[in-house]
Amino acid sequence: MIQKLIKRIVKTDAPVVVGLDPMLSYIPPFLLEKAFSEQGETLEGAAQAVWEYNKGLVDSFCDLVPAVKPQIAMYEQFGLPGLAVYKKTVDYCHEKGLIVIGDVKRGDIGSTSAAYAAAHLGRVQVGSRSCPVFDEDFATVNPYLGTDGIQPFLDVCGQEGKGIFVLAKTSNPSSGEFQDRLIDGRPLYELVGEKIASWGSGLMEDGYSEVGAVVGATYPEVGKVLRELMPHTFILVPGYGAQGGKGSDLKVFFHQDGLGALVNSSRGIIAAWKQEKYAPSSPEGYGEAARKAVLDMTADLRAARFS
Amino acid sequence: MIQKLIKRIVKTDAPVVVGLDPMLSYIPPFLLEKAFSEQGETLEGAAQAVWEYNKGLVDSFCDLVPAVKPQIAMYEQFGLPGLAVYKKTVDYCHEKGLIVIGDVKRGDIGSTSAAYAAAHLGRVQVGSRSCPVFDEDFATVNPYLGTDGIQPFLDVCGQEGKGIFVLAKTSNPSSGEFQDRLIDGRPLYELVGEKIASWGSGLMEDGYSEVGAVVGATYPEVGKVLRELMPHTFILVPGYGAQGGKGSDLKVFFHQDGLGALVNSSRGIIAAWKQEKYAPSSPEGYGEAARKAVLDMTADLRAARFS
Repeated sequence: MIQKLIKRIVKTDAPVVVGLDPMLSYIPPFLLEKAFSEQGETLEGAAQAVWEYNKGLVDSFCDLVPAVKPQIAMYEQFGLPGLAVYKKTVDYCHEKGLIVIGDVKRGDIGSTSAAYAAAHLGRVQVGSRSCPVFDEDFATVNPYLGTDGIQPFLDVCGQEGKGIFVLAKTSNPSSGEFQDRLIDGRPLYELVGEKIASWGSGLMEDGYSEVGAVVGATYPEVGKVLRELMPHTFILVPGYGAQGGKGSDLKVFFHQDGLGALVNSSRGIIAAWKQEKYAPSSPEGYGEAARKAVLDMTADLRAARFS
Repeated sequence: MIQKLIKRIVKTDAPVVVGLDPMLSYIPPFLLEKAFSEQGETLEGAAQAVWEYNKGLVDSFCDLVPAVKPQIAMYEQFGLPGLAVYKKTVDYCHEKGLIVIGDVKRGDIGSTSAAYAAAHLGRVQVGSRSCPVFDEDFATVNPYLGTDGIQPFLDVCGQEGKGIFVLAKTSNPSSGEFQDRLIDGRPLYELVGEKIASWGSGLMEDGYSEVGAVVGATYPEVGKVLRELMPHTFILVPGYGAQGGKGSDLKVFFHQDGLGALVNSSRGIIAAWKQEKYAPSSPEGYGEAARKAVLDMTADLRAARFS
């Protein structure tokens, strides 16, 4: 899957992934009103609004970017109707030719991780049939439980030709509390980075492994270290834009050929219509606003990568 | 919620939580056959089998234990029908008077953790209405992202009178890979333990906080250290039985009054019917087998706690 992702990045010339993290406050009021009038102020109503909003967004930028990253928490908060829209969004993005990174941050002991891996990347055996479930292309995974919590994901990646991105250094302010602590003189995120490289060593395809790493845009100095430490690891970089990461800081996450990293923006794109800069002339223009924000982000990153 | 849990533990004299982690291989064939004949070998069929199995289990032991711990991965692997059964199981256990610990191991950056906290312990705002979602009593949480990933859970626990159990030292063989690494001469799990104690300090109720810790039964020496380091923290102890933890090792997880810990067993109870010792005379007896296994586990722990 990593080579499929790289091909799309090269084709779009955009190492950009759009985070489909639909807070209700990002959704234009006309969509909320329509959904609530049809379904009431219920989980079903919220889910319908999210679905229509997502559809408009994806239609607006699907030719510009290689991938989307739906954050499952934003769907899980609307219960079963929300999770049904998560699945519908995954399928719709696939129809539109997008690669889907399920931002699920799952991770548990072995037998439980095996269930998560089946749920998100593989198939589950039911009697004599093996059934696909959520069926994303990549999933994000938490490393706190160590190798035996990761192995079931590696097994499924090998069988299904899919990939994972493992959290190394997250973009949030408190990420250093544990991740930066020194172990034998080196921060924990470096140890995790080394493990990520080793977990990926059996899943290599043309110079990159199916096991990527998550490293926040908000910590470019860490990105520089981990880029060198894990030369064959693709880096998923959250935290651009609304969380504070700037294009000019991100060069260090890329190799000299401009590959090796994929930068996520969520709010900055999907809620672009709320910014004065992108304010649309009619409420229906929220997709057009997102499209403009994608183009600006792509230009910003292009300048940074080859500066 | 922690005091409600303690009251039930005292009433049942059983510091036991049953892990409702339904693998299809644990479900008696007659239930699978019935479900598959009605729904086919589909996610719906699997979910129906899980639901009927769970109902029989819960009916068999609900008077003996204070709590259950459904592992959401085992439901998520069956997609939306599986997650519908997760919710149905949570509600059914509540009807039967059980406390429900959602073993979800969620954890993310602040705004995302807020969505998970709403989904599992709180309510989500939809227009003018605030809707409960999965509505467990406790949830398990991963600490890797640090305080700002935990804070939204603390906020919801404060508002709703609920609780969390944060992973400190997990029961799996690889847990030491990161969790045991020394930082200033002390293992990471101790640092996490200290944070857990401090996260709970604002949510105290009669000597215990709403913020518990997960410490694996398979590492009693760690349990001893963490029991002393976090005197006001309730410890959820997975790994008893099938994973290798023995009652006689578990005394160290408890305070001298026999409180302070809750021991989980999953396979050892819910798949007890597969053990020769508990083999039922008819297939429908799987619940009775589970009941016997609960009684044996309770006796084993009772002996250990006060030995």
